[in-house]
Amino acid sequence: MMLDFTHDDISSDEVRRLQQIYEPLTRSVQNLIDATIRSQVDAATIAQAQEHIEAAMRRLRSRQIDGAFGVRYDSDGQSMAWGNVAMGLRNPIAPPLLVTHESPGKVTCDFRLGAAYEGPPGLVHGGVCALVLDHVLGQTPPVKPAMTGTITLQYLRPTRLGDLHAEAAVVKTEGAKTFAAGHIADDQGVTVTAEGVFIVPRWAWPTSD
Amino acid sequence: MMLDFTHDDISSDEVRRLQQIYEPLTRSVQNLIDATIRSQVDAATIAQAQEHIEAAMRRLRSRQIDGAFGVRYDSDGQSMAWGNVAMGLRNPIAPPLLVTHESPGKVTCDFRLGAAYEGPPGLVHGGVCALVLDHVLGQTPPVKPAMTGTITLQYLRPTRLGDLHAEAAVVKTEGAKTFAAGHIADDQGVTVTAEGVFIVPRWAWPTSD
Repeated sequence: MMLDFTHDDISSDEVRRLQQIYEPLTRSVQNLIDATIRSQVDAATIAQAQEHIEAAMRRLRSRQIDGAFGVRYDSDGQSMAWGNVAMGLRNPIAPPLLVTHESPGKVTCDFRLGAAYEGPPGLVHGGVCALVLDHVLGQTPPVKPAMTGTITLQYLRPTRLGDLHAEAAVVKTEGAKTFAAGHIADDQGVTVTAEGVFIVPRWAWPTSD
Repeated sequence: MMLDFTHDDISSDEVRRLQQIYEPLTRSVQNLIDATIRSQVDAATIAQAQEHIEAAMRRLRSRQIDGAFGVRYDSDGQSMAWGNVAMGLRNPIAPPLLVTHESPGKVTCDFRLGAAYEGPPGLVHGGVCALVLDHVLGQTPPVKPAMTGTITLQYLRPTRLGDLHAEAAVVKTEGAKTFAAGHIADDQGVTVTAEGVFIVPRWAWPTSD
């Protein structure tokens, strides 16, 4: 069985099957990232670990796509942005940030950030908060995909590593522009707020014909 | 030999030795992240790769610090933010973003973003641009560390994956606040601009006694 994404005729069943193959691999590599940062083993043990990592990599790279993953579509037209750094099923960097559409124009996202997302000691890097809010606010426009036009972030207090929540809602729309606002919160309340303008590219506009 | 960071009496020579042990491990895991996203091998080969990854993880986790890495200091007082998501030597997520201080208040950063930082197909995720600019602008204040107060990003056009450049400079300072501005550029020019206010926490202020 080959995992060939070069044509777009994958059925929804096949997509689910592929998810079950890839998701455990992605979670293992995410776990390995955490271990790489926190390990205190000696140099000889690190060398052994590295041999295993190189062996894993040789197997994975024995057949691979050229360049980045991009976005693929299944036979129902559902998009699979599996390489996406914020929410991609195959990207170990993605926490992942999976949003729930609560109502039209309103999204929420519960996620966990561990050692790999650290800036100041014990705290989420300010730039990671920006990545989270860019992604979450970017899910509010009624048409996908939307590109960020501008975004402003205000940091009220530090965001500690651990379980976190984000949400965003549409403030208004003007043609292809969606104005959205949102925040990140921990169990003590809001830590970072954001407002931004997101633009649906002309090719993605719904047509009337 | 144990890699013990629990006390802060590591000499600069020891720090260099530790860098030589950890940096290749970090680069291997970074490479593995890319392979995880781009691989097209069959399910049986993925299972083999995953066994190697689990074996590497068991070795690394056999002795590890509690929680995140934080910031450690060598005997010269040099900080080692090796877990930092933007520039940490031990964090495979960090591209890494290593800034050069061109002159007081002026920094530049050359870096490469591959498949792991993708948003739209072939393009850098807007939130990753925000992470880069938060980090680079945050290196401009005269006193370290500085926390982000506010930051505004304006996306002029898409940023393609590949070799990129960022730079930032101090616009003005007011007490503990540094106002900075900067941008990301590819070989065709500026793609994203940013301006922000960065605040040095009170405990980090230089004292006159």
